[in-house]
Amino acid sequence: MSEAYRALEARFARMSHIGGALSILQWDHQVMMPPGGSPVRAEQMATLRQIAHELLTSAETGELLEQAGQENGQLEPWQAANLREMRRSHRRATAMPTDLVAALVRATTAAEMIWREARPRSDFAMLRPALEEVVRLTREEAAAKAEALGRAPYDALLDGYEPGIGTAAIDVLFEPLAAFLPDFLEQVLAHQVEPLPLEGHFPAAQQKVLGERLMRALGFDFANGRLDESLHPFCGGVPDDIRMTARYDEADAATGLMAVLHETGHALYNAGLPKEWRHQPVGKPRSFALHESQSLLVEMQICRSRPFLAYLAPLLAESFGVGGAAYSVDNLYRQAIRVERGLIRVDADEVTYPLHIVLRYRLEKALLAGELEVADLPAAWNEGMCELLGIVPPDDRRGVLQDIHWPRGAFGYFPCYLVGALLAAQLFDAAIVAIPRLWQSIRRGDFGELTDWLRKNVHAYASSLETTELIRRATGPPLSINAFLDHIRTRYAN
Amino acid sequence: MSEAYRALEARFARMSHIGGALSILQWDHQVMMPPGGSPVRAEQMATLRQIAHELLTSAETGELLEQAGQENGQLEPWQAANLREMRRSHRRATAMPTDLVAALVRATTAAEMIWREARPRSDFAMLRPALEEVVRLTREEAAAKAEALGRAPYDALLDGYEPGIGTAAIDVLFEPLAAFLPDFLEQVLAHQVEPLPLEGHFPAAQQKVLGERLMRALGFDFANGRLDESLHPFCGGVPDDIRMTARYDEADAATGLMAVLHETGHALYNAGLPKEWRHQPVGKPRSFALHESQSLLVEMQICRSRPFLAYLAPLLAESFGVGGAAYSVDNLYRQAIRVERGLIRVDADEVTYPLHIVLRYRLEKALLAGELEVADLPAAWNEGMCELLGIVPPDDRRGVLQDIHWPRGAFGYFPCYLVGALLAAQLFDAAIVAIPRLWQSIRRGDFGELTDWLRKNVHAYASSLETTELIRRATGPPLSINAFLDHIRTRYAN
Repeated sequence: MSEAYRALEARFARMSHIGGALSILQWDHQVMMPPGGSPVRAEQMATLRQIAHELLTSAETGELLEQAGQENGQLEPWQAANLREMRRSHRRATAMPTDLVAALVRATTAAEMIWREARPRSDFAMLRPALEEVVRLTREEAAAKAEALGRAPYDALLDGYEPGIGTAAIDVLFEPLAAFLPDFLEQVLAHQVEPLPLEGHFPAAQQKVLGERLMRALGFDFANGRLDESLHPFCGGVPDDIRMTARYDEADAATGLMAVLHETGHALYNAGLPKEWRHQPVGKPRSFALHESQSLLVEMQICRSRPFLAYLAPLLAESFGVGGAAYSVDNLYRQAIRVERGLIRVDADEVTYPLHIVLRYRLEKALLAGELEVADLPAAWNEGMCELLGIVPPDDRRGVLQDIHWPRGAFGYFPCYLVGALLAAQLFDAAIVAIPRLWQSIRRGDFGELTDWLRKNVHAYASSLETTELIRRATGPPLSINAFLDHIRTRYAN
Repeated sequence: MSEAYRALEARFARMSHIGGALSILQWDHQVMMPPGGSPVRAEQMATLRQIAHELLTSAETGELLEQAGQENGQLEPWQAANLREMRRSHRRATAMPTDLVAALVRATTAAEMIWREARPRSDFAMLRPALEEVVRLTREEAAAKAEALGRAPYDALLDGYEPGIGTAAIDVLFEPLAAFLPDFLEQVLAHQVEPLPLEGHFPAAQQKVLGERLMRALGFDFANGRLDESLHPFCGGVPDDIRMTARYDEADAATGLMAVLHETGHALYNAGLPKEWRHQPVGKPRSFALHESQSLLVEMQICRSRPFLAYLAPLLAESFGVGGAAYSVDNLYRQAIRVERGLIRVDADEVTYPLHIVLRYRLEKALLAGELEVADLPAAWNEGMCELLGIVPPDDRRGVLQDIHWPRGAFGYFPCYLVGALLAAQLFDAAIVAIPRLWQSIRRGDFGELTDWLRKNVHAYASSLETTELIRRATGPPLSINAFLDHIRTRYAN
């Protein structure tokens, strides 16, 4: 191991600790901070981000990377992968001119603020100029990164969330889904039995107790984490100090509970990252799709299954005093797998969710390619909804204005959600083969073997493997839509 | 304003934001963090401290200070004071060789850990080697700082907590107190009427509600702060986001409540610091004695007064359903001003507290001067207790082992507590003169004018004035023990 590599490990450990501090400050901002703390918190976080950015992009880091690269042969495999990840983040961070970075921060901050007003008013015209500026600068960003990475512009953005993957690979996955799902949806809706409503009063305190009980059952360790409340549920903190949040609606336990289970999947991934590489790039998650696969595996594959609901039903009765036909396992299952032509992505079910993503993916590709302009976005959105989901939003609030991603400049993010769903299905398929009587264990609320399998086959690799290679090792075949199609056929067409 | 000065402001703002981030992480550590987060939090905080230290001590900062110093004439008064404070912290931080800083961190971390075990076991021998190492290194620290600052060694340490003051000034204040108080204590004890015990059950949730109500009445703004629980009450965070903590004993409301009121005094000081200088050294508190004076002014001068207790009595009745003779204003007052020859500093009353401080001050001066060795500390402690307080600790747990300060290497800190009590008395005297019918306002729970007076005469100056100059402007005469003596004579000998 060279001096240069050793010096890089020290530098990246420092960045990791700054990042860890930021994740706690971010959590505090969402969960604890009094409103008057907002301006100074923004300055604190900007300062820490700036310091980490300076460390990453400094000439010294560049020189050390070059030196270490020449002595690469002396590194162990994980060290070599670590060096690759260091180089990757350095290359991405130095790809953009400093004034473009600053312009993007300003433009996205402004657009996000305007979006927060424009969305409830359903006023796309209000957002348009700010979003145009974001798109203009994001095109510049994509061009700069494309040049630095030797990739197509949109692929260079994708690479920030799902390294290595490109539009060619995504198209192969998404286009067959876009072709298959509209008809499939029609069939499912034609045969679907409407469930009884899940009425009752669900005190937030009891929802929390039940949520924590399920988190514990799934393997969450409260010695290394907490569950609190925030406006939007998320999983933050660092692997040894995980900060999960939930939001409770006292008239509806299902939504809050499913969100807890979803975030628990993220939390288990973070907790399962290899301890000895905690503070190095190779020990951190780099694939948003893989991260999302872990939350969807828990939420969709496990927790919307009939065996899980059979385990859950008596816990619901115990926690909230509910019962009767509405809370039978049959009806709970009907609720959990209810399909609907909905307008809102975050409320979508497993069958329609991919179509929401395909729409966004097509539109943002076109925006980046200059084939679509912001002014034409609402019309394109509504056309796409009509084609893919067979419904048209009555207003932009429930249409093109619904997501925060574009005002924030997060182009290339949406596809990861759907790739995550595909990964989840394929991984769960492999787990079922590997673990005898897995469904029976889930029925009993025993998730130990499954969590162990995920640790060993997914979490423990962190960023040491490309996602494509990881999925091949964990499941056998390369990533495809097959497992997902089997899954939705089995669950929704039976 | 010179380029150099402008560049310094930017650098110190950056350090301020790092410090602000640290204060929130510190709060989280005490209040929120799950136990397993401890090691990684220590690394995060060490990293941020290191970055701030590097910024402060860098050659570039030194050069900018020199340049700005040559152009000093162009600065406004607050800018000039700011430059003075920058220079002060730079000089103190660069006074010590890096390896001495590191050795002290190691030694005090180890000593503090051993102290946590040795204290409950009352085992001084267990702590002795670690404390000897701390004292040895602190003597080196004092010598290094003495040389850099041109002061006597112990004075150079004092200067870290109370800039400018030295043993000569402290002796003038403390020795007359040490001469006067033992006899005075005897008199007070001879005439003291024993109060009825304050029995009852005081649910923590209601203590919190009452605490928050009193905080609000005193001027605490919950848009810029929170009240939570921790093992030891403290006031942390930053002026726009103050994090106060309390600890509740359900069998005793008085202790928890008085701690809340004490910390509220600290909080009001922080909130009152000048907004436009929030992130510059001159806008921060630099005098620990002045900070302590603000907590003692609230706790001792106001909240242990009869008018305050007359305001509080009905609130206690309302909050906890208590009443009868024990909760009469007379008895509450007797409780609030009860004097006792006690062994423990943190439980001491206003009359004996100064004697606890004088003891520590004398001992730490002797330790630093090499006139006393750690091995002889327990005997010297017990002798001093006998001389000053007329009692001898039956064991070291309740003697020399009771405080964390020395294992932590905080020599020169103790005197600030007593200087704080003197400042509090003198400031409150001036406030009474300045504010017509102040006692009547306190009786009604109206603290607005007092808080305004403190803002204007104390908080708003931040570090722009030396403490001696601030007290002269705010009260007229220079700092002395007169107001404190008047206060305790009036309160305890009537």
